[in-house]
Amino acid sequence: MTDGETQLIEAARQRLGPKAVVTDPREIEPWTTDWRGRVHGAAPAMLSPASTDEVVEIVRLAAELRVPLVPQGGNTGMAAGATPPADGSAILLSMRRMNRIRSLSAENRVAVAEAGVVLATLHDAAHEIGMRFPLTLGARGSCTIGGLTSTNAGGTQVLKFGTMRSLVAGVEAVLSDGSVHSGLSGLKKDNRGYSIDQLLIGAEGTLGVITAVALRLVPAVAARAVAWAAVESPERALDLLRFLEARTSAIEGFELVPEDSLALVLKHVPNTRAPLTGEHRWHILVESATADAQHDIGAELERLLGLALQQGIIGDAALASNEAQAEAFWKLRDSISEAERAEGQTLAHDISVPVADMPRFIVDASAEVERRFPGVIASGFGHLGDGNIHFHVRAGSHAAADWYSQEGEAITRFVDDLVTAAGGSISAEHGVGQLKRAEFARLAPPGRIHALRAIKQALDPLGIMNPGKLVP
Amino acid sequence: MTDGETQLIEAARQRLGPKAVVTDPREIEPWTTDWRGRVHGAAPAMLSPASTDEVVEIVRLAAELRVPLVPQGGNTGMAAGATPPADGSAILLSMRRMNRIRSLSAENRVAVAEAGVVLATLHDAAHEIGMRFPLTLGARGSCTIGGLTSTNAGGTQVLKFGTMRSLVAGVEAVLSDGSVHSGLSGLKKDNRGYSIDQLLIGAEGTLGVITAVALRLVPAVAARAVAWAAVESPERALDLLRFLEARTSAIEGFELVPEDSLALVLKHVPNTRAPLTGEHRWHILVESATADAQHDIGAELERLLGLALQQGIIGDAALASNEAQAEAFWKLRDSISEAERAEGQTLAHDISVPVADMPRFIVDASAEVERRFPGVIASGFGHLGDGNIHFHVRAGSHAAADWYSQEGEAITRFVDDLVTAAGGSISAEHGVGQLKRAEFARLAPPGRIHALRAIKQALDPLGIMNPGKLVP
Repeated sequence: MTDGETQLIEAARQRLGPKAVVTDPREIEPWTTDWRGRVHGAAPAMLSPASTDEVVEIVRLAAELRVPLVPQGGNTGMAAGATPPADGSAILLSMRRMNRIRSLSAENRVAVAEAGVVLATLHDAAHEIGMRFPLTLGARGSCTIGGLTSTNAGGTQVLKFGTMRSLVAGVEAVLSDGSVHSGLSGLKKDNRGYSIDQLLIGAEGTLGVITAVALRLVPAVAARAVAWAAVESPERALDLLRFLEARTSAIEGFELVPEDSLALVLKHVPNTRAPLTGEHRWHILVESATADAQHDIGAELERLLGLALQQGIIGDAALASNEAQAEAFWKLRDSISEAERAEGQTLAHDISVPVADMPRFIVDASAEVERRFPGVIASGFGHLGDGNIHFHVRAGSHAAADWYSQEGEAITRFVDDLVTAAGGSISAEHGVGQLKRAEFARLAPPGRIHALRAIKQALDPLGIMNPGKLVP
Repeated sequence: MTDGETQLIEAARQRLGPKAVVTDPREIEPWTTDWRGRVHGAAPAMLSPASTDEVVEIVRLAAELRVPLVPQGGNTGMAAGATPPADGSAILLSMRRMNRIRSLSAENRVAVAEAGVVLATLHDAAHEIGMRFPLTLGARGSCTIGGLTSTNAGGTQVLKFGTMRSLVAGVEAVLSDGSVHSGLSGLKKDNRGYSIDQLLIGAEGTLGVITAVALRLVPAVAARAVAWAAVESPERALDLLRFLEARTSAIEGFELVPEDSLALVLKHVPNTRAPLTGEHRWHILVESATADAQHDIGAELERLLGLALQQGIIGDAALASNEAQAEAFWKLRDSISEAERAEGQTLAHDISVPVADMPRFIVDASAEVERRFPGVIASGFGHLGDGNIHFHVRAGSHAAADWYSQEGEAITRFVDDLVTAAGGSISAEHGVGQLKRAEFARLAPPGRIHALRAIKQALDPLGIMNPGKLVP
């Protein structure tokens, strides 16, 4: 422990009280390893402020003593952006005690939630007033509003409502000098200079500590319809999306699932069964929803899928006949990563290309990866309508036990090169964190890296805000 | 002219050709005075690049020679943000020759327009492919995409589709070191670091020169309905908006007009008449629109206004029976500023407060201003649903001819104090430019000014990007 760390911990204990300071390694340990268990960090202490004022105190002390802070929410990040460095040179700043929903208004359609509010808690609170926060993802029971904002999270309902960047109405954050950026005014229009809110969204804690966020709400869902459809190719899948979107504005989810991924789910995940009979090469999970109780959303989706079947866009389709079946369809989609892990070693890539180019990319990139690395199985699944898929490469059945560590980097570089050549992003929704920093540095235009470094230096001249993350 | 300016002009002439360089003062003069004719600048030359490469050339030269540039589009700004300094110490950079629509896709719902494309031109081009760019404002025949983006413009259709910040899918810009930020990839999801796109939106050219913008399109309007309604108070007006929004998602425009403003329009603007008979204190112009030709939007609006009448929310209403009448209703709203000018001296303030607080603010602030400055007439009109009104203060009939110059500053300070006390913004949609810089500096929290200056210094260390604007 450095002198600075010792002093910061002592000062925090005195000013914020013993509850705000944890130094027992056993208590800290669950929070120093990343969500996927791949990156192991260390921290001499975890500070847990309960208010914005307490965050200000900690940041001021950290600046004075030159001790870096690593802000953390639910620790569910996919890029190790909230995992402290392994050498113990930074202090963990847990935001989980800041878990108040400060306000919630159906009239204004805004919720103000502190950084540590868990997403599922916000969902429930919005539901109680007849409203809805329309972003969701697998980790909803653990991930926090601060983390979601700091990583500009996406998820399965982005198609209609966008990522966090579209859903954040304002941000409150403590900047590196201890000043508070107060963006929670709830103004719908405000043109007083650069948007610090937008700069903090997706900054992964490297420019300041987000303490609270104003979030847009939409009317609660009155009814939803979920269907499973079979298509011949990713191209046909995109045709189906265009077909549906031209006829209704109710489509909220549109997930592509290759046959191969479905087969793994059916093999490894208990209580699952295929929604359609027969063999199909590609599948689509489609969800439509409405806030209007008069709108027969099920009938609409059934009619549109019937038309699509007549026109030869899809080969077959099944509408979930009740909520349990709808959940069962979603479970098939949500279990793909789990099934892949059960099958063997898997290398995940969260990538995007322009929507119109995605069908061809999936097919071509899979073939190129399988040709270049014989024996592997490559496939893409997920958010086709966002041009964002999870491009996974699995070890073949004859792969060595250390395939991942031996081959992983070369395969990832190959995939990232293909994505870059296609004008895409090597981080569509997971962020850069620690895990993608080297690839980001390798592939980004120099001007971009230069601009990012200049902004980082301007707003965090002492380098105390989540060092070693995002900015190469 | 400084040596640097002379060298820059000469070098630009050689490298970009004589067409790109104008030095005749008579040709430059229309572009050195702001839209409202209040701020008079000067520039020894106006450079008009025709491509991004030419902008790069100019910016590199300007950086080398330390000559500031003032980017300009249609010169329709309301805050003199594109007017050069009066001492001739900067060169005008006109973007009007960069007027190509690079691409336009109904399938991808994106248009890529160069900075100098006029808004009305984009409207027409989108319409031709069955799509629509859903932002519009009075200056649509002159204002450009680059200026709209640089000022995060709003307008009369923000309620449903948001300001430019929501409609921009990506920005291409030349940064102060001559590097090109290329954000036009059209990716719907991209989490590779801080959003330079969002930083450039609303930056008023102080961080770089926007050369092209990717813009979201929506399906073309199949039908619209326009109605005029009378309400007792701004509170009732907001009640009406909530009432409508709870029952339809088709409301796109919702403009508040005080009786006093309507009376001025009827008095001064030819060929206008009141939509309703009888005396009413406040009026609402409401527009709903649909992309679905099956949806009888007129019948829906008529039915909803009928219900609102029954429930006592409104006192009377008239649905425009055809497109000519719809245009006539909009003309009443759009002519308010013109009518005020015809009546006498007027002081304009573009302000916002939280939507729910706006009704009370309009009433209370008007009363306070009229009490503090006896004889003046204060009123608010405009985008009630955005919490953004144009709060205008008119000279009374006995005011001196120099009322504006004598009293204007004190009244504006008083209004800005009221707005700030209400947690609002002194620049809702017009930006800061030159005109609001002093008030911004006076009223913004010091931390905010510090952060803005740090970002400006980081991305424009030589201070060549539109100096003297926005950042105090």
